[in-house]
Parts: sequence; structure tokens; C-alpha cells
Amino acid sequence: MKRLSTADPTFESHFTALLDEARETTARVDAAVAAIIAEVRERGDAALVDFTARFDRWTPVDAAALRVTQAEIDAADASIRPELRDALNLAADRIEAFHRAQLPTDLEMKDAAGLTLGMRWGAIDAVGLYVPGGKAAYPSSVLMNAIPARAAGVPRIAMCVPTPDGVLNPLVLAAAKRAGVTEVFRIGGAQAVAAMAWGTAQIIPVDRIVGPGNAYVAEAKRQVFGRVGIDSIAGPSEVVVIADGACDPRHVALDLLAQAEHDESAQSILITPDAALADAVAAAVEAELRHLPRAAIAGESWRRHGAVILVKGLEEAAALTNRLAPEHLQLMVDDPRALLAQVRHAGAAFLGRYTPEAVGDYVAGPNHVLPTGRTARFASGLSVFDFLKRTTWVEADKAALEAVGPAAVALADAEGLGAHGRSIAIRLGQTGRP
Amino acid sequence: MKRLSTADPTFESHFTALLDEARETTARVDAAVAAIIAEVRERGDAALVDFTARFDRWTPVDAAALRVTQAEIDAADASIRPELRDALNLAADRIEAFHRAQLPTDLEMKDAAGLTLGMRWGAIDAVGLYVPGGKAAYPSSVLMNAIPARAAGVPRIAMCVPTPDGVLNPLVLAAAKRAGVTEVFRIGGAQAVAAMAWGTAQIIPVDRIVGPGNAYVAEAKRQVFGRVGIDSIAGPSEVVVIADGACDPRHVALDLLAQAEHDESAQSILITPDAALADAVAAAVEAELRHLPRAAIAGESWRRHGAVILVKGLEEAAALTNRLAPEHLQLMVDDPRALLAQVRHAGAAFLGRYTPEAVGDYVAGPNHVLPTGRTARFASGLSVFDFLKRTTWVEADKAALEAVGPAAVALADAEGLGAHGRSIAIRLGQTGRP
Repeated sequence: MKRLSTADPTFESHFTALLDEARETTARVDAAVAAIIAEVRERGDAALVDFTARFDRWTPVDAAALRVTQAEIDAADASIRPELRDALNLAADRIEAFHRAQLPTDLEMKDAAGLTLGMRWGAIDAVGLYVPGGKAAYPSSVLMNAIPARAAGVPRIAMCVPTPDGVLNPLVLAAAKRAGVTEVFRIGGAQAVAAMAWGTAQIIPVDRIVGPGNAYVAEAKRQVFGRVGIDSIAGPSEVVVIADGACDPRHVALDLLAQAEHDESAQSILITPDAALADAVAAAVEAELRHLPRAAIAGESWRRHGAVILVKGLEEAAALTNRLAPEHLQLMVDDPRALLAQVRHAGAAFLGRYTPEAVGDYVAGPNHVLPTGRTARFASGLSVFDFLKRTTWVEADKAALEAVGPAAVALADAEGLGAHGRSIAIRLGQTGRP
Repeated sequence: MKRLSTADPTFESHFTALLDEARETTARVDAAVAAIIAEVRERGDAALVDFTARFDRWTPVDAAALRVTQAEIDAADASIRPELRDALNLAADRIEAFHRAQLPTDLEMKDAAGLTLGMRWGAIDAVGLYVPGGKAAYPSSVLMNAIPARAAGVPRIAMCVPTPDGVLNPLVLAAAKRAGVTEVFRIGGAQAVAAMAWGTAQIIPVDRIVGPGNAYVAEAKRQVFGRVGIDSIAGPSEVVVIADGACDPRHVALDLLAQAEHDESAQSILITPDAALADAVAAAVEAELRHLPRAAIAGESWRRHGAVILVKGLEEAAALTNRLAPEHLQLMVDDPRALLAQVRHAGAAFLGRYTPEAVGDYVAGPNHVLPTGRTARFASGLSVFDFLKRTTWVEADKAALEAVGPAAVALADAEGLGAHGRSIAIRLGQTGRP
């Protein structure tokens, strides 16, 4: 963990180093992924069966075995403990309510020139959701990726999840059922992305693919981009906690560690004007680390990428936060709304001392798929907007065209686009040759 | 030009071939672009001077000469003919009014569990606009790219435009002045994209880069993506015109040719239930081609990629349009709104017989930067949303956390994330070790 203080004359260089810290090295898998995609395009379901046998340590008897049946989904759901079923239902309902509230309204306006202008929102026809298998198979991610699509009105949501050794994760299937996923395939890796983008005999192609994955999945999404839409490719997770001296250091420490336990590349940063809190939190982190199931990962993240920054006041904390543009931001201060008003860049904010970030990972309602690695400067969390697209429209009659057409003709002529100008002029009876 | 009819038993294979037609071959310039970006990162402004001398046939006396001065912008603006100045003003005002109407509102909701949830829109700090030089230097594109950024509230809009042989395009500068561009650099190609993404001594880096460009510019945008946001990389332009027998064939022909004259890879498709109109439009295209300044380009596009599709009725026309998902769609029929309601996928629609697409290219108000190549299935035209990002937020007190926290703890435990659960449990006084 690094300790920085804005009172230190060398602060700026240390802070810049923190900003530029590369927390991830990406393996080059371009060629391997291109080969997988080409084979899925050529051989379809047969290639999916072969890749599954090779990578997932189980051999589907045929292509149909790649589809998870409704009976399997229902059985998985029935196997869930009641307490977990209730938790999934609560989370799904709250996520759905928040994302429905995001739904935008269409626009229609008639202006002084007599033109009617509009903008209409519509849902994508079909979305593909990639869900990682193994240790990172998070039911909460299924809810967070699929429910906004359903709230947007997407009629078809296909999901691919690898099942290493043939083992289905019942919580993932239960989440898919609640989130409105319409079809589930037990396929992983680049081959799953290829199948959803290009289609096979069994899998109808989708229009957009979302969801996290390993380097192969991320590269496959890059390679099919254009054919289909993709979401942004997430980097390691991060949190900035701004806390004042009135905070319980153990609360702050656990919030930092909740981020750190995701993976060794995660980053947790405390910014505080209170030197005593800084010391107490640092001590509490070490104390809590002794008890956590993922202490090895969390400890490694904290040692490598953690930071405690001492500032002169909250205004300075907000200014540094704007340069960090963190994925998650906790504002554990007396007036968190006033502080939020000074923050321009953050994926998601958690206000006050009783809103730990973890509540947002599961049940608060807003999405937990958020922009990482300082991209909150220009990017946003997943939302219904990722599953909607806009069609703008214009309607003119002859009088309206007379009002604005001559300006368009002048500009078209200046750009040397004769047919553009003439397509307007001829409607206005200006039929002389240009 | 191809002629298809849905009455033909082989229609489906011909239409599928039309859908799959690749209209563009992309040159592989990855390595050349990577080298340019590396040199700009290493040598900054000096590299920009060298690349400009090498590629743009003029040698800046120093790095400062790469910046277009306010005096140059004002002089360019003063040199514009009054008719064109009026046209630019009309276009800018109308584009601004429409994009301001797009501005979304923030969300705040308190729910039954006592949590307050919100979503706040904010503008990106700085945007870079790339404007091609030479023949494709369109002032209308400057307006269409920059005005939505200004309407969104972006305080800094930097523009890069190459000036081959050192010649500034006065209309482009006049458009930049009206569109709220805050700084203009006479730099082109991959080096301009690199400079805007990474910054130099003279150019402060931006957060998002938009605007069209050649293969080098497109590849540079791909390579800096992640460091900054980018817009989608546009392919060749296209239009679908649905017209009934009551249309003037010359109007339809000119609308098809207005698309075709953009470039040889553009595509113009007429869909009509009226065989006589199909014949008359085909003839009118040939007649009009004799007179157009860009007849060679438009003719080549029409011969290579043009199509006339005869359908049984408008419902079939809408169904085919949904498979084509065109960038531009003209609905030249009696009830265009009813037909639009059947169309799910189109970048922009133009309703009725007096709304040629060209009016939307310049003055209607909606954006002319639109999804091409069937990507309207999942993508949208440029808008204020490209220059805004969202921060979601959650505020809970202890009672609210008591209401939803246990469900989050259950899910965190199921996912094996101990610190997540404990960060909530400790706030609820459940301090026993897990």
C-alpha cells in the first residue's frame, strides 16, 4: 500500500504514477481467437461440440446437448436454498425497478419552419449474454446483465456459460430464469462469442453481446465487433473511499477489502483529511485480512495497488477523485450530496456511512457493470440504454421544404454534392439544370 | 443495379446475397499506425511537425504553427459568401435546437425499503473532433459532430483537420466557429488522433474522439480506444427508399443518386410495390446521371451496389427494411407514420414525398452521423448521448441497510466474497466472525 499526502512536495509525481499504473497485462490471443471464430463459422455446431470437449473437460453427446433444457433450469432453481431464492428475488425485483425507471421517452417536435422532428427509442431484437464459468460464475452478474435488456424490451436474450467438467451452476441458472433469459447454452470462450455473433444451425445469431470474460472472450468480442455490438471490455475493478474522521475505521477497511478481494489487480484507495483515520484504517485492513476467506487475493491487491491519500480537505479529495475517475466511489462524510456535486467522474457513487459498495453489487438496484480504469471520464455503467437504439425522423411538406431547402441546396453545392442539391431543388420546382 | 422481386422463387438467395455484400475492403495499416502513435507519444509536437511535412505537403515553421489562430478563423469566416453564411447559421441553429431537445433528465427515487437511488447525467470534459481534409472536408460534418457536444455541455472541443499544401478550408473553419469548437489544429491522419488521445506539450489530451476519417484515422481510433472513448467507425453510406406508385420517379431517382454520389461503395435501394414506378425510376436514374457533376462516382455506385426490389405490398417492404437495417430510410407513401411504426431498424427516417434525405444531411436538425452496414440493428446516430455519461448513486441509512443488507450478505456468501458480506454485516452490528 502506498501512502501519499498532498502536503508532500513530491505528491504530484507520486499521484501521476498512481494514475498511470498499469494493473493488467493482456495476453495476445488474437490468432488463436481468429482460428476459433473461423472454425465456428465454417463447421457450426460440430465445432462447438469439439471445442467444448477440448476446453471444458466434458464431451457433449451431440449439438443438442449444448442447450440447457427448461427442465434443467427448473431443477436447478428448485435446488436453491429458500434464503438464497428470496435474496435472488429481492435483487432481481430491485434491479428491474431501477432499470425500468431509466427508460427514456420518445421525442416529437414541430418547429416554426413547419418540419416535424422526432426521435424514437426501440429495443434491440436479440442480445447474447456471456457468463464466465468456474470461480467467476456470479449469479449477480447474470441479473445485472440480463435484467436491463429485459427492461429495455429485448424479446430474445440468449446466454452462454461454460460448464467445466459438465457441471451446471444452479445459482447461475436460477438467476437466468429470474432475469428473463430465453435460452441457455453450455458453451464458453471465444467459441461461444463466435456462435452468438455468427449463428449456427442451433443458435440464432444475436445483435449485441454483453458480459465479462477472460482474455479469449474479450478478444473474440473485439473481433466480432461490427457484425454485432459489444459492451466495453472491463479491466480490473477499483474503489475510491472518501472518509472523514467520524467514520469507523473497520467499516472503511472492509469496504477497501471488498474491492481488493475481487482479484489481485483490483485497486482500493482511501482519501481522507484525517491522519488518525488513515492510520486506523491501515491497521484495521491488516487485522481484517487475518480473517477473510480470500485474504491472499485481497492482501496482494492491497499491497500492490492500494493507496491511502491524505488531503487538506474534502474539496481536494473531490479534485483528486475527478482525476482518478473511479469505477466505485464511496462518500463517507457528513454531507455526501454536497461532495457528490463536486465530483464529475465516477461510475457509481455510494453516499453516507451506511451505504457500503457491496450493497450496490447485489441489491441496491443500479447496475454493478461499471466503467473501469479511469474510463468513467467518458463511459457509463450498463443500463437500459445499452439495449436500446434510436431512430430519428423528419417529416416535411412542400411549405416546410421551401423554408429550409434553399439553405441545404447552398451547402450541398458548396460541398460539391450536386444530386443532394438537385433532389431538393426539383421538389421546389427549380427544375433548371444546375 | 440489381432487380429483385419477392414474387421470384429465388428471391431469398438474392436478397441474402445483397445483405451479405461486402462493400468495402479495409487496408491493413495496423503497423504503420502503431509506429505513428508511438512516435507522437515519444516526440510530441516535433513528431507532429515532421509527419505534417511528410504527409501534408507543407512544413510548419514550428509546433505553434500547427494551431490555427483565432484571427485565421475570423478571416476565414469573413470570407464566406453571405448566402452560405446564412445557410450555415440556419443549419447550426436547427441542429442545436434538435440536440438540445434530446437532453435527458436526472433520476432520483426513494423506494419502500428506504434507499434513495439516483442517476445523474454529466458532460465529458474534453472532446476531440477529427475532420478529414481534401475532397471530403465537409463543413456540415463539423456542425453535426461538434454541436451535439456543445449541446451536451462539453466545455472543451478540440478539432484537428489536415491542410494539404497548407491550404485552410474557410467553410470548415466557419462551421467550427459556429459549432463551438474551442481550438483548431492543422494536423491530420493517425498523428492527429494520437495527439488528441495522448497529448503533447501544445495539445491537452481529450477524453473522447469523434469524426470520420480514412483507414489510418479509423485504425488510430481503434488503437487509442480505452485510453479515450471513440465513436463507431463508419462504413460506406446507404439509403433505402420505399416509394409507391404516386411518387414522381425523378424525385426518387435523385434521392437514390444523392446517396450514390457520396462514393462508389455507397448503396441505394428502392423498394416498391409498383412495377411501373420501378421501371420509371430506373430510367430516370440513367437520365439524371447524364447531368450530375459526380456522375462517374454515382453511376459506379448504382451499377455495383444499387438495387430495385419489387414487393407485394408495404408490409413486405417494412419486413425487408428490418433485415437491411439501413442508415437512411425514406418513406414516400401516403401514410409514412403507419409504415414507420412497422420499421424496427433504421438510423434515420424521412417521411413523405417532400422530405428528401438531403434535407437531413444539412438543415433538418437530427444528426447525419448514422449507423451504417446494418448496424442500425443495435447502434444509433450521433447525439448528445455520445457526449454525456451517467453516474448512478445510492444512499442508505441504517434502517434501509437493515432492509436490504441481509439479502446482499446471502448472495455475497454464495459467491464466496467474504469481505463483501462482512462490510454489510459489520454495519448491522453482526460482528461475529463469519
